[in-house]
Amino acid sequence: MTEQIKFASGLHVFGSTADRYVLSGYKPAVPIAKMIQNAAKVPDLKGVELVETWHVTQENADDILGQLKKAGLQLSMLIPDLWAQGKWGNGSFTSNDPKIRRDAIETVKRSMDVAAKVGANLVDVWLGQDGYDYCFQSDYIKAWERMIDGLGECAAHNPKVIVGMEYKIKEPRTHCHISTIDRQLMLYDRIGAKNLGVVLDVGHALEGYESMAEVVALCKLFGDRLVYLHLNDNYRLWDDDMAVGSVHLIEYLELLYWLERTGYNGWYSLDIFPYRDDGVGMATESIKWIKDLRRVMLHIGMDKIAEVVESGDAVRASKLVREGMFSLARVPA
Amino acid sequence: MTEQIKFASGLHVFGSTADRYVLSGYKPAVPIAKMIQNAAKVPDLKGVELVETWHVTQENADDILGQLKKAGLQLSMLIPDLWAQGKWGNGSFTSNDPKIRRDAIETVKRSMDVAAKVGANLVDVWLGQDGYDYCFQSDYIKAWERMIDGLGECAAHNPKVIVGMEYKIKEPRTHCHISTIDRQLMLYDRIGAKNLGVVLDVGHALEGYESMAEVVALCKLFGDRLVYLHLNDNYRLWDDDMAVGSVHLIEYLELLYWLERTGYNGWYSLDIFPYRDDGVGMATESIKWIKDLRRVMLHIGMDKIAEVVESGDAVRASKLVREGMFSLARVPA
Amino acid sequence: MTEQIKFASGLHVFGSTADRYVLSGYKPAVPIAKMIQNAAKVPDLKGVELVETWHVTQENADDILGQLKKAGLQLSMLIPDLWAQGKWGNGSFTSNDPKIRRDAIETVKRSMDVAAKVGANLVDVWLGQDGYDYCFQSDYIKAWERMIDGLGECAAHNPKVIVGMEYKIKEPRTHCHISTIDRQLMLYDRIGAKNLGVVLDVGHALEGYESMAEVVALCKLFGDRLVYLHLNDNYRLWDDDMAVGSVHLIEYLELLYWLERTGYNGWYSLDIFPYRDDGVGMATESIKWIKDLRRVMLHIGMDKIAEVVESGDAVRASKLVREGMFSLARVPA
Amino acid sequence: MTEQIKFASGLHVFGSTADRYVLSGYKPAVPIAKMIQNAAKVPDLKGVELVETWHVTQENADDILGQLKKAGLQLSMLIPDLWAQGKWGNGSFTSNDPKIRRDAIETVKRSMDVAAKVGANLVDVWLGQDGYDYCFQSDYIKAWERMIDGLGECAAHNPKVIVGMEYKIKEPRTHCHISTIDRQLMLYDRIGAKNLGVVLDVGHALEGYESMAEVVALCKLFGDRLVYLHLNDNYRLWDDDMAVGSVHLIEYLELLYWLERTGYNGWYSLDIFPYRDDGVGMATESIKWIKDLRRVMLHIGMDKIAEVVESGDAVRASKLVREGMFSLARVPA
Repeated sequence: MTEQIKFASGLHVFGSTADRYVLSGYKPAVPIAKMIQNAAKVPDLKGVELVETWHVTQENADDILGQLKKAGLQLSMLIPDLWAQGKWGNGSFTSNDPKIRRDAIETVKRSMDVAAKVGANLVDVWLGQDGYDYCFQSDYIKAWERMIDGLGECAAHNPKVIVGMEYKIKEPRTHCHISTIDRQLMLYDRIGAKNLGVVLDVGHALEGYESMAEVVALCKLFGDRLVYLHLNDNYRLWDDDMAVGSVHLIEYLELLYWLERTGYNGWYSLDIFPYRDDGVGMATESIKWIKDLRRVMLHIGMDKIAEVVESGDAVRASKLVREGMFSLARVPA
Repeated sequence: MTEQIKFASGLHVFGSTADRYVLSGYKPAVPIAKMIQNAAKVPDLKGVELVETWHVTQENADDILGQLKKAGLQLSMLIPDLWAQGKWGNGSFTSNDPKIRRDAIETVKRSMDVAAKVGANLVDVWLGQDGYDYCFQSDYIKAWERMIDGLGECAAHNPKVIVGMEYKIKEPRTHCHISTIDRQLMLYDRIGAKNLGVVLDVGHALEGYESMAEVVALCKLFGDRLVYLHLNDNYRLWDDDMAVGSVHLIEYLELLYWLERTGYNGWYSLDIFPYRDDGVGMATESIKWIKDLRRVMLHIGMDKIAEVVESGDAVRASKLVREGMFSLARVPA
Repeated sequence: MTEQIKFASGLHVFGSTADRYVLSGYKPAVPIAKMIQNAAKVPDLKGVELVETWHVTQENADDILGQLKKAGLQLSMLIPDLWAQGKWGNGSFTSNDPKIRRDAIETVKRSMDVAAKVGANLVDVWLGQDGYDYCFQSDYIKAWERMIDGLGECAAHNPKVIVGMEYKIKEPRTHCHISTIDRQLMLYDRIGAKNLGVVLDVGHALEGYESMAEVVALCKLFGDRLVYLHLNDNYRLWDDDMAVGSVHLIEYLELLYWLERTGYNGWYSLDIFPYRDDGVGMATESIKWIKDLRRVMLHIGMDKIAEVVESGDAVRASKLVREGMFSLARVPA
Repeated sequence: MTEQIKFASGLHVFGSTADRYVLSGYKPAVPIAKMIQNAAKVPDLKGVELVETWHVTQENADDILGQLKKAGLQLSMLIPDLWAQGKWGNGSFTSNDPKIRRDAIETVKRSMDVAAKVGANLVDVWLGQDGYDYCFQSDYIKAWERMIDGLGECAAHNPKVIVGMEYKIKEPRTHCHISTIDRQLMLYDRIGAKNLGVVLDVGHALEGYESMAEVVALCKLFGDRLVYLHLNDNYRLWDDDMAVGSVHLIEYLELLYWLERTGYNGWYSLDIFPYRDDGVGMATESIKWIKDLRRVMLHIGMDKIAEVVESGDAVRASKLVREGMFSLARVPA
């Protein structure tokens, strides 16, 4: 049985979240120091991710990492900026401009160096800008060749640092190249490096009509690649980045089961956008939902779940979940 | 507080469900008599809906109704066939052929007569074939005029029978005319008759990106029109007709709350398609989920829910649901 | 036959478009004066919409309107800001805070005064922030009562100014209250004022699985309410705000036909977000697509189209469109 | 440049198409002989696909193939029945029942033998029933192991017959295991056999938010696997199986370009469901649309398209398509 699971969160959860309509943010601007203090208020939260450009730069890195330490928080993952500046608008690794491609590769390597130095040992390459919006706008084959080259060079830079990637079907491009778990695993097969990992944003799976649980199983089957989790929820048509426990309770329960079954022991990290809501409150609730659902899973028992899964019987699956959730609640305390 | 709620089901739940690939059905054919016996096995099930052509005809009506009675089941609603024969393929009320339009109107009137005779007093006009598949295929304005005329004539036929309608955004047409709750209520406003009611298939609401709860509220606000419920679940992109308790637990909880708050006291009827699953088992599970979720609602308390709803605070809403579901489960029995 | 149609555009098309990832914009910041000069470069563009807060304030109004005039551009519509500041995050007309509701109403009235003064006579009330993200977060009935009150007061403020509204199914909220054309028309029926108009963003129709053409027909049928068009395109799952001519050519052709048939004679205005693309180029292309598709429509002929529509025959509809598009192209010039 | 392209069609296009509401079909039953005669009426149609169980059995195979020959039609592909009988309801290759799995494998082998005998040399393994509907219903890893075993055994049965597969994201299951092009290609990589090919149903690509053109490019990149095309159209949320030329003209143009560019020289086969429409008429129109769009492509010129694609400039891409479609049409003949 996996020991106590460990929780992290993106630091942006505690900032002034913005969208394309309210560019200045739905809440007053929050300085980084305050965001870190807020993160520290969330019960059970032990780790924090940082996005370069947004949260950390070459200049302030030591300062920020010092603040984290003081607040009792670890750096769970570092996210190099390949998508938060206008220069990346037409792609990073797949840009038509060789200077931008070089810039992208060097950006990832620098992040790897920082990650290695502070012991996070994991960076998240999110190719959100690498894709296309319109027909006749992309040479799909060339884009793949460039991703194979670029990511391969990064992976080779330091085999001790895991280069994670986070597939997404769309946004900010109407179509991202690395759109599904399969496309990402296929890219990894081509490159072949061992230090390539999957950062699974479960909202991206839902948005792409994937089963979160099946994605975990495929990561196991195709190289045991799962290294990090981004947790949130949505209504399946967009990356709404809602709090955990908003919509998909049963699918979350199945996700937790497959994480346990496949021996995942990395961070359970929140990637939510509480545009109008209290960040500390929403992060706290999200963690409580995960813990409560995990308690249900353990209450039912891994073996009993496995037995029902093997049967393939949907009536038994329904009963299993329903009784697991409500059997004790039925008896007044 | 609404008294004990009452459960019904479509009779097709207990038959050999078919789709466009397995036209002969996923299970061996089941005679009507056997379907009725199976329905009677489901705990708490008191009512059954019948579809004309599929389950009941002028010829066998007395026999079937006799069998229902013997099995201790009421006829909860009668569904005139405006969609189960090839002749309706290009529409019923909105067909370009005046003979088909007349046929459709007379079909509904006949159903109303039967319903009146047996005391069901409710028919469900589902205009699934009235819509369009391609551009330049429909004179939208003429279609509306025909629906206003046809439905108006039916409503006037017998003011004591409620003419229910069941909007749906698509299937079998790629676009149905009466696609959303608002379109249906707008049609009713135009006709003006009091005996026009809403048969809400909650899966149709989910499929159309509606909030099931908001739909109930709108029915209240615009004429107190809700008369019947079709309950099922889906993944939001199609009318999957899955069992209740499959995906949308929190949305179902909110639905139950608004039903209670607006004083709905009609049937809670199942419209699920257990293609590969045991119909009795799936109906039983669906009813148990509804009862369990209703128990959670009552355990939390209507007033406490109302207070959180008024606050508009999403963190409080999350806590309310989570603690309502799991607070007792946390304490071992 | 409608005379020459007239084209407008949102001014933001010529700015530095931003999203939630690149908050500073994909292109360098563009001063308003430069945006107006760029708009003037687009062939056939005669009108410009302005968004308050973004483009125009009480302070700079005279200056901006002077610049428009100088550039040979009319103000086609004014958009009061009910969504571009953090204060609107939990709604404008439907906020739980009475001060915010009052602020929203006064904001619209002030816009109406400005519009009246400069002869635009049309404001666009877009309630993008009025909705909900989570279950148990909204009192749906109260929200409707507040919209009826708020919008009613605005309409009564000056019957000579048209108060337009622009429904949208989601974004920035995961669910907006006024989500579909029907919901908007139903709200208008309740208020009853004559100066309430529909600003149809065709991308919102596509995103909500509506037929753009059917929406135009419904506007005609329910009070002849269509007053303005926002034109763009998308992949049906999100408000991608792509250029016209990107995806839905046949649906656009059908839209143009129904606009002509119902006698629409307002602006054809662009609401596109060319994040990574040249704004002048994309606006120019969008207008050319509309003109070319309109040329196809006129080449086929309104009567011939009507005849096929009346037939309901999808094979004839296909032939009509295909031959209309390609018959001349087949003969080398 | 690819020579004249060759057209085929599923035979069901000429039958009495049915769905789950009208199980007896929207049109009167059509005998196989008549369906073949109707197929022969479609201009340019040279090939026909047959589905076992539906169209051809061990018993009538010689007769049917004789009729095809007489009508001047080739058998373009044979589709073993792994989905049209109730016994496959819980899967074929992935069934929990070893007898069903064996049955599935033998069914495919028998089809391969027939295909080899008549020179079609291609069978289409469509695993529509292999997937899951509910959470906790599938052991995803075991399912993959079974697919690898089953498909591998089939491929090894006769290396001269191509075993095609046709991925689909859903329907009839709410989730099919082989859901995307990437998942299929990953499965092939695991098995390693050379005679595994992709049968691309472009509607399945659209339904899964894939770019049809990018899928073709990926097939080229990952083993040059594309062997057959199923052509149709839809509204992106479901496998509507509409006629070609209904919605996605520009995406079709881009598809045709990438087929040409990657040297595809197999059949262009129709898989449409003209439920309410004339099958001969719809097939004829579909082929004419493809030919007309291909004419536009050739008129623009492969080199000019390649140049714009390399530029990545969406404004140029828009102009390219628009002028290609309408430049000649502008000059009256």
